[in-house]
Amino acid sequence: MEHDLNQTISLLARTPAALDALLRNLPEMWTFRNEGENTMSAFDVVGHLIHAERTNWIPRAKMVLQFGETQAFDPFDRWAQVRESQGKSLGQLLDEFGRLRSESLGELQELNLRKEDLGRRGRHPALGVVTLSELLATWAAHDLTHLHQISRIMAHQYREAVGPYSAYLGVLKCAGHSSP
Amino acid sequence: MEHDLNQTISLLARTPAALDALLRNLPEMWTFRNEGENTMSAFDVVGHLIHAERTNWIPRAKMVLQFGETQAFDPFDRWAQVRESQGKSLGQLLDEFGRLRSESLGELQELNLRKEDLGRRGRHPALGVVTLSELLATWAAHDLTHLHQISRIMAHQYREAVGPYSAYLGVLKCAGHSSP
Repeated sequence: MEHDLNQTISLLARTPAALDALLRNLPEMWTFRNEGENTMSAFDVVGHLIHAERTNWIPRAKMVLQFGETQAFDPFDRWAQVRESQGKSLGQLLDEFGRLRSESLGELQELNLRKEDLGRRGRHPALGVVTLSELLATWAAHDLTHLHQISRIMAHQYREAVGPYSAYLGVLKCAGHSSP
Repeated sequence: MEHDLNQTISLLARTPAALDALLRNLPEMWTFRNEGENTMSAFDVVGHLIHAERTNWIPRAKMVLQFGETQAFDPFDRWAQVRESQGKSLGQLLDEFGRLRSESLGELQELNLRKEDLGRRGRHPALGVVTLSELLATWAAHDLTHLHQISRIMAHQYREAVGPYSAYLGVLKCAGHSSP
């Protein structure tokens, strides 16, 4: 199936509001607990999305357009949010994510990409050659992998409370494979 | 960890708005496609949540209070939404889910449950004895398992578009284990 940039943008535009509706002012039991050592809480995930918004998607898209395959993207720090979210509330992070996403989508529009631009190639530091189309589709899928992760982290907090119903709850069987 | 009914209610109250923010007016590529034969689309999942809202949570809670373990809950039809959602738009389903959830939470409040009521026991047709606490905690975890499922169904539509990035997207490795 061909990648359609408008569909990607439609999803990207909705993620901040969806996370806001789900998480804002929820009791901290849902948002500050994680799945165990070296795992993220919902709070951490929102911080990670913010860091990706600042350093990953649009900056990398611009690198593809400017340098093609000749210069690899800067490596991405998957734990930067531990430092960057310190002292902030979840409400502040949700505001920040919404603002940054909105700015990113404005910048994306300014790039004025034509269909043929989507085939342009860049260099990922670990994956090698990737196309602009793959990078932008991944931006949307990355939102979804973290929505998937957040729902799993939250369900994890009720793994005992549900008793025998755990047999029916697929989310409790998801083996923590959601790469940040 | 003890089940706290207020935490459960906090989550239950937010799910309709979160699904609304994510799904309303999204291109149908995201909301009407599924993961293959005999799997659900996001549209189907919202229909399933509606059916559960009508027939599962509050009706079963009332059965626990009225009959205890002496009468098993009616079996739940996991594919009822195929019939019930026919001819409706996703917007209509989202409206319906929001309205029903709001009514359910009103009814829950009217039950005026005390802490000791949460230990009361009912009979699930397949799982056997379950407590009211387990039933209500499962109501929240069931929202989460379906948010987890919806994000996976949607990500599935981009499994090819992301190219080599699929290695980093945990959601694409989730083996369809989210029981309805």
